[in-house]
Amino acid sequence: MDRILGIKADFLTSTHKCKIERIAAGNNLAVRYFTDEADLDAAIDQCEILYGYIPPAKLPRATSLRWLACASSGVEQYTASFLYPHPGVILTNSAGAYGITISEHIIMTMLMLMRRMPEYTAIAASHQWKSLGRIRSIYGSVITVIGTGDIGTAFAQRAKAMGAAHIRGVHRTNKPLPRCFDESYAVEDLDFALAGADAVVICLPETKETENLISRERLELLKRSSVLINVGRGSCLDQDALMELLNTGKIAGAALDVTTPEPLPADHPLWKTKNLILTPHISGNMTLDITCDLGVGMFCDNLTRYCRNQPMKQVVERSIGY
Amino acid sequence: MDRILGIKADFLTSTHKCKIERIAAGNNLAVRYFTDEADLDAAIDQCEILYGYIPPAKLPRATSLRWLACASSGVEQYTASFLYPHPGVILTNSAGAYGITISEHIIMTMLMLMRRMPEYTAIAASHQWKSLGRIRSIYGSVITVIGTGDIGTAFAQRAKAMGAAHIRGVHRTNKPLPRCFDESYAVEDLDFALAGADAVVICLPETKETENLISRERLELLKRSSVLINVGRGSCLDQDALMELLNTGKIAGAALDVTTPEPLPADHPLWKTKNLILTPHISGNMTLDITCDLGVGMFCDNLTRYCRNQPMKQVVERSIGY
Repeated sequence: MDRILGIKADFLTSTHKCKIERIAAGNNLAVRYFTDEADLDAAIDQCEILYGYIPPAKLPRATSLRWLACASSGVEQYTASFLYPHPGVILTNSAGAYGITISEHIIMTMLMLMRRMPEYTAIAASHQWKSLGRIRSIYGSVITVIGTGDIGTAFAQRAKAMGAAHIRGVHRTNKPLPRCFDESYAVEDLDFALAGADAVVICLPETKETENLISRERLELLKRSSVLINVGRGSCLDQDALMELLNTGKIAGAALDVTTPEPLPADHPLWKTKNLILTPHISGNMTLDITCDLGVGMFCDNLTRYCRNQPMKQVVERSIGY
Repeated sequence: MDRILGIKADFLTSTHKCKIERIAAGNNLAVRYFTDEADLDAAIDQCEILYGYIPPAKLPRATSLRWLACASSGVEQYTASFLYPHPGVILTNSAGAYGITISEHIIMTMLMLMRRMPEYTAIAASHQWKSLGRIRSIYGSVITVIGTGDIGTAFAQRAKAMGAAHIRGVHRTNKPLPRCFDESYAVEDLDFALAGADAVVICLPETKETENLISRERLELLKRSSVLINVGRGSCLDQDALMELLNTGKIAGAALDVTTPEPLPADHPLWKTKNLILTPHISGNMTLDITCDLGVGMFCDNLTRYCRNQPMKQVVERSIGY
């Protein structure tokens, strides 16, 4: 019986499939595409490799599994060891595929907040033609980026090119960062990195260390004119404190693409919070051609490495969570 | 009697005033600030120089005028010779002050259109949490910039840094353009510059040559997935044709910061046009600190040149219109 590579992913083009199948064919792997959960259920126990979006609850039945390749960047739902039939399963994510799309989301929402676009949208809805006065710009701003991986770096490069005055990168350790960052802060020095910032961008994974990292006390360090954008995970942030600060005008605005919980219930107070741009976890996803191309490219590279017993990339250290 | 520099501008800080007054004092110029039109009326005939926002209808009474320094970039209201008491009046604009603020507006609205933000705003208003699917990006796009002055160039630099695949600059002549443009087109070749573009940006002044330059026929050259942004003047564009193309889905979206007429009447059909982001001529203006600083800096430089009888900058050639 052939070894099986099972794929559950709705974003693959025929070019992507062709690329994957060519590598599989050269390595005695049969490719099976699962279009729904019943398909997946019927064959999950035969798959040596699973790629795409696999519901975590199905993993205990994947008794032949040796490698789970997630199409997402955040894999907090896949780190618990009880999910896996045996401890040797390799877990990889697709960190590196999302920098372009998410950095464009951050640039867009930051400018919308700085240029008062939610207010302009509201007055346009009532057909009013008037200027609201002073605005702010990325040009000349001090920006703090918390999480300096692919996404944080892609954003910092763009903000720098737009004339940001000073970009502070906050990382677990104070390692040297790419040139687009002006300064590197260790996470213990986060308070200093927040003080005086015009904009704060959070691109953190969900881990034990990041939970409530942006606490009420830290949010209160921000200046009144600052804006905050979260594209990481909702759990990083004290959401109740943020709502209070926004509703009382203690910070100028925020954009959340991630919340607690998700999906956000229709009666949740976040929907009615002032100066908040709320998007339904769409800053990443496989909705941009380049994201899909990069994700599939990374998977194919890893597939070759796996078949050749070479060291793999994007391997998640489950105890850390990314 | 002192020679008088009259200023009508609500955006000046005390630092700006100090800077202007220092130069004036060294050149036997008295500075007068006009806070309302009555102030201006009472002294306009004594002013040798006028700076700021001067209503064109008042100019015929400015019998001592030698230099009119407009704080705006577009000066189409100031080019008619009958406005001036004598033909020797120098007209300057503030082209060069607006590149940063308007390019940030263009980047913002382009991303909003490409990432379907108006639709996401609408579903957020009804508290719905769902993905709308495919989006597009500046990364990898072919972008046509019509008008390659300060604003068009500032935008092209930013789009290039964000990974735009190819930027076409359209100019009156096909002169060599800054490095951020991949290709230079003369305006006669505009049709070729529009074909296949993912995004079209119009940053043209209002002149005889630019009127209806983006005609119905030219709008029909655009592909269905393309987006169009106008930050120049409403007269450049066949607005009725644009509304039709948007309402019938023949182009993907547009953002207009300038319209015909302005202000736009509350019952104008533009307000209800599909996939259109409408802003009330606020992409520029003196609403950003850096714009004010640059504008005042340019005026002060020119003031020194004027007093020393040196060649001035930003001089408008009235027959061309910019």
